[in-house]
Amino acid sequence: MAKKILAVVGATGLVGNYFLKVLQEKNLRFDDYFLFASKKSEGKILSLFGKNYKVNTLTPEAIKNRGITHALFSAGREVSEKYAPLFVREGALVIDNGSRWRLNPLCPLVVPEANIEDALVNRGIIANPNCSTIQAILILKPLDDAFRIKRVIIDTYQSVSGAGIGGIAELENRETSPKVFPKVIYSSVIPQIDEFAENGYTLEELKMINETRKILHRPFLPITATAVRVPVFYCHSESIDIEFETPCEKSDILQTLKKAPGVVVYDNADYPTPFDVEGKDEVFVGRIRKDYSRENAFHFWVVADNLRKGASTNAVQILEYMIKKS
Amino acid sequence: MAKKILAVVGATGLVGNYFLKVLQEKNLRFDDYFLFASKKSEGKILSLFGKNYKVNTLTPEAIKNRGITHALFSAGREVSEKYAPLFVREGALVIDNGSRWRLNPLCPLVVPEANIEDALVNRGIIANPNCSTIQAILILKPLDDAFRIKRVIIDTYQSVSGAGIGGIAELENRETSPKVFPKVIYSSVIPQIDEFAENGYTLEELKMINETRKILHRPFLPITATAVRVPVFYCHSESIDIEFETPCEKSDILQTLKKAPGVVVYDNADYPTPFDVEGKDEVFVGRIRKDYSRENAFHFWVVADNLRKGASTNAVQILEYMIKKS
Repeated sequence: MAKKILAVVGATGLVGNYFLKVLQEKNLRFDDYFLFASKKSEGKILSLFGKNYKVNTLTPEAIKNRGITHALFSAGREVSEKYAPLFVREGALVIDNGSRWRLNPLCPLVVPEANIEDALVNRGIIANPNCSTIQAILILKPLDDAFRIKRVIIDTYQSVSGAGIGGIAELENRETSPKVFPKVIYSSVIPQIDEFAENGYTLEELKMINETRKILHRPFLPITATAVRVPVFYCHSESIDIEFETPCEKSDILQTLKKAPGVVVYDNADYPTPFDVEGKDEVFVGRIRKDYSRENAFHFWVVADNLRKGASTNAVQILEYMIKKS
Repeated sequence: MAKKILAVVGATGLVGNYFLKVLQEKNLRFDDYFLFASKKSEGKILSLFGKNYKVNTLTPEAIKNRGITHALFSAGREVSEKYAPLFVREGALVIDNGSRWRLNPLCPLVVPEANIEDALVNRGIIANPNCSTIQAILILKPLDDAFRIKRVIIDTYQSVSGAGIGGIAELENRETSPKVFPKVIYSSVIPQIDEFAENGYTLEELKMINETRKILHRPFLPITATAVRVPVFYCHSESIDIEFETPCEKSDILQTLKKAPGVVVYDNADYPTPFDVEGKDEVFVGRIRKDYSRENAFHFWVVADNLRKGASTNAVQILEYMIKKS
């Protein structure tokens, strides 16, 4: 059997670190590893399966003829833009956690529980969805299959770790002259994640809208979103309001979600919070209740660890599946 | 002219303190004051307009024949239940910040900018709405008048000061065995404010729904809510989605809200946050944008200081108005 060699791009970043963590937890081993980052991390040593690996600066030369078969990316948009195709040219399958390739119609955008079959179509770049999209999809997909969604409204409560190590530092230091966030996050909330598009939506909100439509294969799904940063270190929460085409009751919804892969359902008066969910790989849903303001509408409260299922775990699941299928 | 004498019930609590603060800021003077609290605050001294007042334990005897003409309440439900009628019997007009009388059909529930005329009908107990309701009403009322609301969905981001001094302490101390909140609030969010009703809604959510209907005089208004506590000390934020009967554009909405009393509108890429709004008396709205998932629907982001406009300022505004009209 040919050797499997994994490259991790952005290995010293927050999600990069989680890639290594999740690979080890899953005991997903390769024959060799290359860890890449930007120049400022050159020479750093990271441990993987008990062995030390030096972090290298990513350059076109550094990846040539290395026999890299798989690559996990969590770097900037420009890095993905430039390097993902170079890795593919070297023969690697790239799974990119960034936003650059997600809406490219030629690239699969994959949440394994929802549309892993899309990953089989393209052996180049597979995109990992936005963290807020992933956790919503685990709920939306089984419900769309069962009752066909008529409209979705999502309001998020997103943790600072979504903005990487710098975001965590700004909350920790109670920064009053923020650089990572557009406003002060300590003891406040910020209804802006990423930049504004012309229509008044933030790019984060548009990601949630467009990525959800792509993953569900429903390009015209009526869906809207408001993305808000909250002073929480880990885990994103979402308040989701869904209207269905098919008449259904709470018991039908519960039955569907209890069978849904990767989903943990809280019933009655208990519910998940970031504090409970940190470090876990599933998506947690609670506060399921009828929305009496519209027929066949329901409320959901969805929490997941944004660095795990929202990023690293989802990417490594795709990787694992692609290896099995290769 | 007869003497005006004000009683403040719950004077040593968080909102009680703000009552005194706002009275002084507005220079709303009475001929005398009585400050009441529970037994544990007996003998405390509070200053008002440069004079010291002793806090007395509230008993039926303590309020008899004092000539109290007005009373501001911010105490527990049981205190309001027992004592508000006793003050009324003594001839006082009571403005109660608690939830006990809000939905009593005989008691006006008043946000001065929206329905001050309701306050003129009953000279007994006037109820001050829930903090989350008040700030929403300042937006909903002018928009309902202009475009008639078809449906409202509110998701809140509520600060810990809504739970009083004890709530602030639990966040400050990073309490891991919470008593005030149902779960840990530090670096987490809690989708539960107040207790659960049988239908799966929390009492806070039902307050928002029922109080809004009462204040807008729209008993069947389709409205739903999800109330969430966030680790923020002061100010509540709300993401509000509104569908209108009358076709309208963003420019129409802006025009209406810019004329709305007590409302400050942020346009374009700027928006209010708790950090910006703390200590202010107005209600701030931004991120006004079309919700493309439904015709004539729009998103709003509404922030206000829950201890000021959400509680003390609103109550003192009612008091001021009632004195002018007497």
